Amino acid sequence: MFITLEGIEGCGKTTQTHLLANWLRENKFSVVLTYEPGDTDLGNSIRSLILDSHIDLSPNTELFLYLADRIEHVRKVIKPALKGGKIVLCDRYHDATIVYQGYGRGISTEFIKSCFDFLDFPLPDLTLLLDCPVEIGLSRIKGRRWNRLEKEGIDFHRRVRKGYLNLAKEEEKRIKIIDATRPIHLIQEDIRKIVKELLI
Amino acid sequence: MFITLEGIEGCGKTTQTHLLANWLRENKFSVVLTYEPGDTDLGNSIRSLILDSHIDLSPNTELFLYLADRIEHVRKVIKPALKGGKIVLCDRYHDATIVYQGYGRGISTEFIKSCFDFLDFPLPDLTLLLDCPVEIGLSRIKGRRWNRLEKEGIDFHRRVRKGYLNLAKEEEKRIKIIDATRPIHLIQEDIRKIVKELLI
Repeated sequence: MFITLEGIEGCGKTTQTHLLANWLRENKFSVVLTYEPGDTDLGNSIRSLILDSHIDLSPNTELFLYLADRIEHVRKVIKPALKGGKIVLCDRYHDATIVYQGYGRGISTEFIKSCFDFLDFPLPDLTLLLDCPVEIGLSRIKGRRWNRLEKEGIDFHRRVRKGYLNLAKEEEKRIKIIDATRPIHLIQEDIRKIVKELLI
Repeated sequence: MFITLEGIEGCGKTTQTHLLANWLRENKFSVVLTYEPGDTDLGNSIRSLILDSHIDLSPNTELFLYLADRIEHVRKVIKPALKGGKIVLCDRYHDATIVYQGYGRGISTEFIKSCFDFLDFPLPDLTLLLDCPVEIGLSRIKGRRWNRLEKEGIDFHRRVRKGYLNLAKEEEKRIKIIDATRPIHLIQEDIRKIVKELLI
């Protein structure tokens, strides 16, 4: 089973992914917890190029680097884990490309989708979209050093949120919206309920 | 004016590009000599990832990294130089992607071309294809440490050569085939003749 977690900066995705992994492991499931960009040798280099470097990059460059990262991530981490019968939890995946590079940066989502088709990325069985207003998300990450994407203006993050909500409308069956303005344990409760249904 | 030089490993491309640049400069032309992958900050990182690293990469990953490199190279080096009225000499460009990743690695050339269209790469005014049998090319680079592509088997290099010759047939007006089995000065003579015609 392949589950992705998505949402704007500060939505609590990473925390919730870890809590979900712990709960699944306590229940004797074999879990692979992974993330994009970065959970391969190439991915780590790309992650630092895209997120942490001061090299000025065009939106299309960013897109192609993210896709290169995902190709390696799918073949080296996700596909082998799924083949081995594991539950794969991925912190950001293909929806993030549609909303950050498409809605956020203005690249044609049609072109991005044509790349996905060509690259034959496996589709998640379930995507948990942790949704909250941009102001709440950004206020939660105020203390830490921001990366290239986090540093974008508030309008960028609003377009990203809107993109996620549009995708959820288009794919109601796969993408479940979770109200991420609430306390951590209530969000996790909702997540476990949804995942439980899928596991039975 | 935008001129690219192409050919298999060991065809003498780099030597000929430098000789051509020197001659043009002696004749008071303003020349920008550049190369792919790599003549930008991002490009240097990508060059070392693709050519020199030991990270195993899939053909599609290689393709997307080369395209990311070219996007930056076009916007930061090639377009500004052309806009400034310079003659741009580029050691490998888009034809290399068609033949190395398409013919060589087996990726759909149709898909590669659809990426070129989307990315709106400027087309060279002239492409000099230095052609020689694979055995001659490879024997010339025998002494040096080979990079990832040079290390490929002889069949790979044969497909690359065939790819170049096919492209030259498809685009006779732009791509000029030059017999690169001959001595350096004779090859350069031919190149200068062709470039002269374009300059007048």
